Amino acid sequence: MTNNTAFRDLMAFQRQTEALGLVAERLGWDQETMMPSGAADQRGEEMAAMEGMLHARRTDPRIADWLEAAEAPDAAGEAQVRLIRRSYDRAVKVPGDLAEALARLTSVAQGIWAEARAKGDVAAFLPTLAEVLALKRQEAAALAAGGDLYDALIDDYEPGATAENLGAMFGRMRPRLVALRAAVLEKPVPKALSGHFSAESQMRMARDLASAFGYDWSRGRIDLAVHPFSSGGGNDSRITTRVVETDPFNCFYSTIHEVGHSSYELAIDPDYGMTPIGHGCSMGVHESQSRIYENQIGRSRAFTGWMFQEMRDRFGAFDMPSEDAFFAAVNRVQPGFIRTEADEVHYNLHIMMRFDLERALIRGDLAVTDLEAAWNDRFKADFGVAVDTPAHGMLQDVHWSCGLFGYFPTYTLGNVYAGCLHQALRVAVPDLDSQLAKGDTSAATGWLRENLQRHGGLRTPRATIAHACGFEPHEGPLLDYLETKFAGLYGL
Amino acid sequence: MTNNTAFRDLMAFQRQTEALGLVAERLGWDQETMMPSGAADQRGEEMAAMEGMLHARRTDPRIADWLEAAEAPDAAGEAQVRLIRRSYDRAVKVPGDLAEALARLTSVAQGIWAEARAKGDVAAFLPTLAEVLALKRQEAAALAAGGDLYDALIDDYEPGATAENLGAMFGRMRPRLVALRAAVLEKPVPKALSGHFSAESQMRMARDLASAFGYDWSRGRIDLAVHPFSSGGGNDSRITTRVVETDPFNCFYSTIHEVGHSSYELAIDPDYGMTPIGHGCSMGVHESQSRIYENQIGRSRAFTGWMFQEMRDRFGAFDMPSEDAFFAAVNRVQPGFIRTEADEVHYNLHIMMRFDLERALIRGDLAVTDLEAAWNDRFKADFGVAVDTPAHGMLQDVHWSCGLFGYFPTYTLGNVYAGCLHQALRVAVPDLDSQLAKGDTSAATGWLRENLQRHGGLRTPRATIAHACGFEPHEGPLLDYLETKFAGLYGL
Repeated sequence: MTNNTAFRDLMAFQRQTEALGLVAERLGWDQETMMPSGAADQRGEEMAAMEGMLHARRTDPRIADWLEAAEAPDAAGEAQVRLIRRSYDRAVKVPGDLAEALARLTSVAQGIWAEARAKGDVAAFLPTLAEVLALKRQEAAALAAGGDLYDALIDDYEPGATAENLGAMFGRMRPRLVALRAAVLEKPVPKALSGHFSAESQMRMARDLASAFGYDWSRGRIDLAVHPFSSGGGNDSRITTRVVETDPFNCFYSTIHEVGHSSYELAIDPDYGMTPIGHGCSMGVHESQSRIYENQIGRSRAFTGWMFQEMRDRFGAFDMPSEDAFFAAVNRVQPGFIRTEADEVHYNLHIMMRFDLERALIRGDLAVTDLEAAWNDRFKADFGVAVDTPAHGMLQDVHWSCGLFGYFPTYTLGNVYAGCLHQALRVAVPDLDSQLAKGDTSAATGWLRENLQRHGGLRTPRATIAHACGFEPHEGPLLDYLETKFAGLYGL
Repeated sequence: MTNNTAFRDLMAFQRQTEALGLVAERLGWDQETMMPSGAADQRGEEMAAMEGMLHARRTDPRIADWLEAAEAPDAAGEAQVRLIRRSYDRAVKVPGDLAEALARLTSVAQGIWAEARAKGDVAAFLPTLAEVLALKRQEAAALAAGGDLYDALIDDYEPGATAENLGAMFGRMRPRLVALRAAVLEKPVPKALSGHFSAESQMRMARDLASAFGYDWSRGRIDLAVHPFSSGGGNDSRITTRVVETDPFNCFYSTIHEVGHSSYELAIDPDYGMTPIGHGCSMGVHESQSRIYENQIGRSRAFTGWMFQEMRDRFGAFDMPSEDAFFAAVNRVQPGFIRTEADEVHYNLHIMMRFDLERALIRGDLAVTDLEAAWNDRFKADFGVAVDTPAHGMLQDVHWSCGLFGYFPTYTLGNVYAGCLHQALRVAVPDLDSQLAKGDTSAATGWLRENLQRHGGLRTPRATIAHACGFEPHEGPLLDYLETKFAGLYGL
């Protein structure tokens, strides 16, 4: 076996694994959008069979031999080898029966969580959460090999990130966010959007918003889902949204957010298709794309001005006096229980709270039986409001039931990266606002495509951001952006 | 390894293979209904990866060991072992590189066929057809092991059927069909349905027709597809239909046909779910269900009477004077080029022609370069009309481009089986017509469910029909039914 042959064989094997992974992802999409309800149990078996098969491929002993012999022909090849080695090393560290037990448990646990949330019954969820946590701690121990358990889990979503670095960054962000929040909340609350906006018209506008952000309909589609998500990659990346007839912003900004995720996948260099570097390079970098589409662009004064006129054309006159009032309504700051509905000022405070709580859970410093009290105490302290029901508290997010510990911090990391990218974008495209005011995002999305999206997983997450921005990522630009934006909006 | 352990291990392995097979089938459904057009190439790779993985499982050498040691605990277990042995024996006979070459070629060949058909360019398709044929003949030779090549291919779709038996049956059917056709064509052509029927109303009625035939919406759904099909099994079997606004019968009878297929899958004993006997037992038996739903029930005087009133309620008055005239319009006999649009009198003549032609191709008695002339000569002789364009002739069906040689005869076999089942059903439910006249198919579908559908692949195809009917299947009942029905309609 020559070195070139080993690399080629490795990549051919990997290409099939990637194809099968895309199939599994499509199956997940189907489950949330198309599947008849009576097919749920059968689908569980189908997913388990796919996961079992994929796990067998990811731990195939031939990979070790190929990796040992492979010599990458170029920088992209080196990145491929790096990612395959990383995935293989992680996969073989976790015993097969543990991986299987986790897959089985978390698929059931989601249903138990959903039922507990609907009933507001924390006690009904705790035994399951304890089981998930126990298995995740076993998994983390297997992965960490003596290192920090929580770091080992974070690394799955954000390679290279550590709890220490994230914690330090959150520590630097927190005082400025708290101060901004306090200043804003002293001011009068802007008028909210009200009225009835038909589902059909919302979906039509959602499609046009996706088009305005350059979504490639020949390689995607939009459907309804209870919890919006994007799915797939290569030449097939689909988005979902939801419709609340009294709250069109829910639909519109969910759509723009998911378009950010999908556009990233669709923009990756076709030469990387069906290979390890043919995906967004981390959860944090992925979230930076959805967030900059949604917030820095989609919630800007310029773009919301265009949106306001579009909405008037479509929905007739509604109760909002001006573009400025509309801009304020889009960016209304109010303490709320639900992370996914939080404004830009509160959002990262939600994440910091989850970060501290799940880190304590994984490290064994917090028992699941004490989680509800810890959540409610912290929420009262940070948000000034007492949690009224568990569905507004520790039962609000699906993540822990799925075993997604270490995922939450990537949301804030995504916001921080979006802040950096936005700063660089403003320098690169000085007249951005005049374009956004016409609903034209092409310069912004084009800059992101060229400088970040097309590179996929070629570089590490931080290097990906640094390459696009020309500076090392840090929290400063996001905080500056938030302080400037909300100072203007609230007359601070 | 005890015998019980071997059987259990075999079934556990098979269960996962079944689950993965269902995933591949769902992927096919997505391709025809949901997939964005730009994803086609990628989907080809995904399908190939699934097929490669499934082929590896079907030829896994452990299956031979398990089969040798396994002792089935009961009759169902014996049927499982029989089907697994059959599948394994066939799979290992075909060399892996041949199976792969066929998969790759036929996926490309479909596109070449579609383009050739659109351009009416036979020459553009012939080289590809020659390649497909050459590989299929190689495959047939590997499977036949010295026996008849065409028989080896038929056996894939209709275990136990042979060209000799089918040819003999077609020989017995042909004179009576030709005579019936001649007699009908001497009579005046009944009035056809005309008018414009909105797509939305057609789809609403298609849903209600599916409901009228007992389709289980909690385990299925309906979508649009260019060529209607049904897909999936167990607790997830979906149907598709199409809409032509000037021809609602196209939508309605496509829907009923696919409901027949899906209802069969959904009715199989849940204990057989995700196992080899948890599917319809052959293409012929499957087609018997779609055909009896569509023709013997759906095109009966009683049921069309109900449909006529339903259409008047939905579409307002349209140009059709009475239930009798509507019944005649539904069952209008006219020579036509296209098999899938053929009436009950002409349909089997289309099949007999394809049977003779493809049998000659596989046996090497007909060269692909002579196929068009052979087709056109035979069509003129059988249908009295000269083929005007290849899309109406040898390019009309996708089958040969997919390598589906030996599939066509199962359509007529399905009609023959439907004839048998209909005869037995009329005996079992003497007042069937009074129920159908109210749009109530529950006695008919209930009888089929109880006597045929729930058994899945427990018995061989002929034994399945014989078990339901109480007599060995033969062509007599179908021919009697056709002669009686069209004598009444045309006053013969």
